Amino acid sequence: MAERPLDVIHRSLEKDVLVVLKKGIEFRGKLKGYDIHLNLVLADAHQYESGEVVRSYGRVVIRGDNVLAISPVEEE
Amino acid sequence: MAERPLDVIHRSLEKDVLVVLKKGIEFRGKLKGYDIHLNLVLADAHQYESGEVVRSYGRVVIRGDNVLAISPVEEE
Amino acid sequence: MAERPLDVIHRSLEKDVLVVLKKGIEFRGKLKGYDIHLNLVLADAHQYESGEVVRSYGRVVIRGDNVLAISPVEEE
Amino acid sequence: MAERPLDVIHRSLEKDVLVVLKKGIEFRGKLKGYDIHLNLVLADAHQYESGEVVRSYGRVVIRGDNVLAISPVEEE
Amino acid sequence: MAERPLDVIHRSLEKDVLVVLKKGIEFRGKLKGYDIHLNLVLADAHQYESGEVVRSYGRVVIRGDNVLAISPVEEE
Amino acid sequence: MAERPLDVIHRSLEKDVLVVLKKGIEFRGKLKGYDIHLNLVLADAHQYESGEVVRSYGRVVIRGDNVLAISPVEEE
Amino acid sequence: MAERPLDVIHRSLEKDVLVVLKKGIEFRGKLKGYDIHLNLVLADAHQYESGEVVRSYGRVVIRGDNVLAISPVEEE
Repeated sequence: MAERPLDVIHRSLEKDVLVVLKKGIEFRGKLKGYDIHLNLVLADAHQYESGEVVRSYGRVVIRGDNVLAISPVEEE
Repeated sequence: MAERPLDVIHRSLEKDVLVVLKKGIEFRGKLKGYDIHLNLVLADAHQYESGEVVRSYGRVVIRGDNVLAISPVEEE
Repeated sequence: MAERPLDVIHRSLEKDVLVVLKKGIEFRGKLKGYDIHLNLVLADAHQYESGEVVRSYGRVVIRGDNVLAISPVEEE
Repeated sequence: MAERPLDVIHRSLEKDVLVVLKKGIEFRGKLKGYDIHLNLVLADAHQYESGEVVRSYGRVVIRGDNVLAISPVEEE
Repeated sequence: MAERPLDVIHRSLEKDVLVVLKKGIEFRGKLKGYDIHLNLVLADAHQYESGEVVRSYGRVVIRGDNVLAISPVEEE
Repeated sequence: MAERPLDVIHRSLEKDVLVVLKKGIEFRGKLKGYDIHLNLVLADAHQYESGEVVRSYGRVVIRGDNVLAISPVEEE
Repeated sequence: MAERPLDVIHRSLEKDVLVVLKKGIEFRGKLKGYDIHLNLVLADAHQYESGEVVRSYGRVVIRGDNVLAISPVEEE
């Protein structure tokens, strides 16, 4: 299984990540935590719709079943 | 897993939270309880649609599978 | 977990509750029973769509996976 | 849990029930059996759409995950 | 649980059945097998959409999670 | 359970199969493997939409939860 | 079960793969890892919509429940 999905997420802790949701919504923020369901905790996060910031959060928990993809921003 | 999703929710007990649902509905209220499915209990809660309050609740249980994100309001 | 979701539902037994479903349908009636899936039993229940009563039931079982929120009516 | 959902369904065996599905389809017929998934067996059943009978069945098994609500007809 | 859903399906083996899917598609054919997920095997089956035969199959496996209802044809 | 769904799929190994997906997409190709989730491996496969080939694959894994029906082509 | 789905994915490690998602979105990139849920890790990946590259990623985790099909590109 080589570089496992949860390992990649673990390595992204304390880094900026892009979270793409199924509904076209995106979040960017610092990854503070996660669990095996891919529930995520972001700090200093912004929510984007159609490329525009629609809300900002000090701390936000995203329920994992909404997630389409997660990517560390610095590797883009 | 660092700052785990359920830990963040636990720390928000007795605080005001914003709950964003998958269908664009939002709730704001004081978090009184939760379980591992992210079922939530809010007190003195308001339900918003398109930014307008559409209903108020003394106590409301939200079924966890509707949840997109949860955020403590004071950290916004 | 403080005031747990199922505890709030248990405390609502024999009381009038509002049940909001995912599809915009609502039920009001006396809560007679429930299980851990949030399947619910209501007595003397009315089903509402767009604010209008569309049907009444002596007894009705609602399958839990349709539920968005449950609230005791007297606390509104 | 008081009057449990499956108890109410069990008490409805051999009685006429209304089964409301998620997609607006309804069935009426005599309840002959069920299981814990809320899969149901109806006898002498009619399927309704927009209030019209669209089909009749001597025996029909309804898969439980389609069910929104079940109600004994005589209690309406 | 009286006449259980899987019992009714078992009794329909080697008989013609109507399978109604969630998406309005229907299959008719001889029931050759099933499993506990309600995955079904039909022989000499026809697929109907809007009442028209759109395809025929010598043997077809239908994945159970698509199923809305199953009915033995001779009992209609 | 007679002729079980997975048995029919097993018997189709190394044969041409038609795979109908929930979204109206179809695949045809030689069945090379499967698992209990109905994840499938096809070789020399074509993907069809509205009856037209839209893509070809030397090897493709189809995730089982997309599947509506599977049929051995030679039995049609 | 012959050539099992996870075996085909395992053999594709370090190779370019096409990942077709349920929503018409596609990713191409080098497969770096996976797990039993078909969560995938791609490196140097591009996301396509309607045939156009809409974003590029150094590393991206795709949640498995979004996946429709996976194919090694060199075998096309």
